[in-house]
Amino acid sequence: MATLTLATWSTNLTYLSLTPPVVDAAVKSIYNWAGCAIGGFAQAAPQIALNVSLANGFNGPSTASILGLNGSLDKNGYGYADAQLAALINGIASHVDDYDDTHLASIIHPTGVVASALLAVSESQSLLRREDPVSGPDFLTAFVAGIEAELKLGLSVYPEHYDVGWHITSTTGAIGAAVGVSKLLGLDTEHTQHAIGIASTHVIGMQVFFGSMTKSFHIGRASQSGMLAALLARDGYTSSLSALEDKYGWLHVVSTRENGTANLAELGQTWEIESNTFKPFPCGIVMHPIIDGCIQLRGQAIAGGKPISVESVQSIGLRVNPEVLVLTGQTDPQTGLEGKFSIYHATAVGLLYGEATPAQFTDEVVLNATVIAMRKLVNVTTDDSVGEDQAYVSITFGDGSTLEKYVEHAIGSLDNPLTVDDLKNKFLEQVSRQIGGSRAQKAYDAFTNIGKMTDVGKIKTLF
Amino acid sequence: MATLTLATWSTNLTYLSLTPPVVDAAVKSIYNWAGCAIGGFAQAAPQIALNVSLANGFNGPSTASILGLNGSLDKNGYGYADAQLAALINGIASHVDDYDDTHLASIIHPTGVVASALLAVSESQSLLRREDPVSGPDFLTAFVAGIEAELKLGLSVYPEHYDVGWHITSTTGAIGAAVGVSKLLGLDTEHTQHAIGIASTHVIGMQVFFGSMTKSFHIGRASQSGMLAALLARDGYTSSLSALEDKYGWLHVVSTRENGTANLAELGQTWEIESNTFKPFPCGIVMHPIIDGCIQLRGQAIAGGKPISVESVQSIGLRVNPEVLVLTGQTDPQTGLEGKFSIYHATAVGLLYGEATPAQFTDEVVLNATVIAMRKLVNVTTDDSVGEDQAYVSITFGDGSTLEKYVEHAIGSLDNPLTVDDLKNKFLEQVSRQIGGSRAQKAYDAFTNIGKMTDVGKIKTLF
Repeated sequence: MATLTLATWSTNLTYLSLTPPVVDAAVKSIYNWAGCAIGGFAQAAPQIALNVSLANGFNGPSTASILGLNGSLDKNGYGYADAQLAALINGIASHVDDYDDTHLASIIHPTGVVASALLAVSESQSLLRREDPVSGPDFLTAFVAGIEAELKLGLSVYPEHYDVGWHITSTTGAIGAAVGVSKLLGLDTEHTQHAIGIASTHVIGMQVFFGSMTKSFHIGRASQSGMLAALLARDGYTSSLSALEDKYGWLHVVSTRENGTANLAELGQTWEIESNTFKPFPCGIVMHPIIDGCIQLRGQAIAGGKPISVESVQSIGLRVNPEVLVLTGQTDPQTGLEGKFSIYHATAVGLLYGEATPAQFTDEVVLNATVIAMRKLVNVTTDDSVGEDQAYVSITFGDGSTLEKYVEHAIGSLDNPLTVDDLKNKFLEQVSRQIGGSRAQKAYDAFTNIGKMTDVGKIKTLF
Repeated sequence: MATLTLATWSTNLTYLSLTPPVVDAAVKSIYNWAGCAIGGFAQAAPQIALNVSLANGFNGPSTASILGLNGSLDKNGYGYADAQLAALINGIASHVDDYDDTHLASIIHPTGVVASALLAVSESQSLLRREDPVSGPDFLTAFVAGIEAELKLGLSVYPEHYDVGWHITSTTGAIGAAVGVSKLLGLDTEHTQHAIGIASTHVIGMQVFFGSMTKSFHIGRASQSGMLAALLARDGYTSSLSALEDKYGWLHVVSTRENGTANLAELGQTWEIESNTFKPFPCGIVMHPIIDGCIQLRGQAIAGGKPISVESVQSIGLRVNPEVLVLTGQTDPQTGLEGKFSIYHATAVGLLYGEATPAQFTDEVVLNATVIAMRKLVNVTTDDSVGEDQAYVSITFGDGSTLEKYVEHAIGSLDNPLTVDDLKNKFLEQVSRQIGGSRAQKAYDAFTNIGKMTDVGKIKTLF
């Protein structure tokens, strides 16, 4: 019944059933995503993917926006790509910095796959086939439908599905995008079931690609796949009415669990989006407590007259949750993307720069001699009793003195979330770098007010 | 080492290393595929997928052919779609009738995913970036590279990977297509490794969709994905050099096996394509022995003056390999596609029509009252000692008499393969229905002579 349960819930969902905290979390998720999609477009991964698509002719008439593209609007006032290509590129760009968002209970970064599909569809009259534009409430309702679908499915297979090596963000995300787009297109329950089926057969994303461009490709490709699934289903393409729960369907094939129906029965009872968190640092989330601790320790050291340098520090000790070394144990990263999955690099830049922004995860910084020397001073021990949002950092200086820091709840975690001001600063900082401060402010205004728009498809014309 | 082993072997492969039986099997595989792609285009699945793509603008400038499209050529003499869309539609069309080919040791239908990508790339000057066209030997070499990659990988995870519910044709096919396209594009070993990685992260296809349009979608989508992977890798998109064997890579994530390297070490020592077989009937291959037996029994009954009808027959007994009921146990199919996975339907049409062609697997025939009545007379027992290419059929008539047939090796199996004349008849029969007898003969001549062509990209202009 899992497939029917999910499709029925989504089909019946209305904007009025979304509580204020749900709407608030949805809007934050969307503008945080948009900031990442604009800022992340500076990276090579989305640029290569766009150029390869254009060079090989994989793009139809422009109906949708590539958010980070810093060119002028086209003659119609918006639109740079067909909806499939826009979803691919915005999806990649929004995730490539590993700066997006995290649902900690499933380690899903939920917004990228769903929002990249929904925005492109909202902008594309030819896809929508409706006379009235997509309003803010329409968009938020479809978005919440997709996010809840993705996260409840994630909970139904976590942790086994993740532990075996799947990139759970994209494997569940394609289904979330299909549910969201089906909602936006107004599909009935049965067509939504077929869309879920077509999306679910795209099991895209494995962890071997963490640290490479393919990690963010997962988000774009899953977004395209969910969108395509809904469009195919609308016009009669058949899959299965029981794609999730069938013996040879998604839940059984991609996991050893069978409790999908139990989790999906809680749709609308508990809202997973309320537990979404936003990243303060552009890298693997398990490293955030260490970075938080390093930045604090650096401030403390400087205040105490002990500047931190390769010359002054003798060794750095970390005590962390075991997952840290499983996911980010790379000692000798060679690229900025690899640096995002190296606890050694994260420690070094936290201590040397006192911040961890996209600027600390470039190829140049990863290959910087001082950073490399600092990385070599780091020793890691793991400890089951250290929580995933906790860490111990200690610095031993050449003069024998030490400084220590215990981080109980890392910044950005559920118990220590980014504030609205933090989110604003994060948005403006990364978006300004890409499209300038004036347009960044306009983009911030546009996306934070998305819920009040009468035509979300026009949002790119506002900045 | 699996990824490096595969990429190195493919990069070094030359046409001269292909033995005459390998070339012969490759040519047969290709023309059998082309016949299916042209004939299968009559089905709803490829038509809906094409129409949805065009209606939503997911198509760039035409560079590649949709083989079954019965229109005139464009002003340049060929080309109907961009290479991605052509690969999707030809892939779907070539598999939708379940009439293509089978590598029995892995139950992979190998040609569709690989050939659909290779033809589209060969036709697209903008993708090839080379001055000389793709010759017949170039095409065959890339094709064999892709097929061997796909089939050796299949063997390395079969049967566990298949038994858990994956559609092994598309899960391995995306990687095969990436290897084949990388070969055609002349990528070096390292870029081919990255292409393998990007392709491998698309684990597309589950068995819950057998009997629906999504089954054939798998082939088209995997073909697109393998092609895209090679094109991205050529221009510097990174994945992993150890995507197949990494702890969180393909072999471990999609199976419980770890012997990929062992199978891949035999690349070029044993040629899997020599074991490819071609389907005599357009339906699940496990039903072929029963259909063979039913057609023979019908001839025998008529010759003996006992016409077979719902009125004359009291019951039909089948004794089959257990896999038959696992894969084709559907008692009450509602569509032509479902009929392709119903041993009851296959038995009924074999006995009533004396043949099993695409005409016996339409929605109309599946819903025909006489066929339904005949299906209800069928009783199936399973027997581990019955081989997968074997079956026992017995008919009990209303007058108490019986007729029995034991099929030792079903037609189309390795020990009883289709002859060259059978393959020709199969090609002309299905292709004539779609594009007429005269063009069918021209298409047959073109594809059977593909190895001698100087520009495979012009093949669609020949018919």
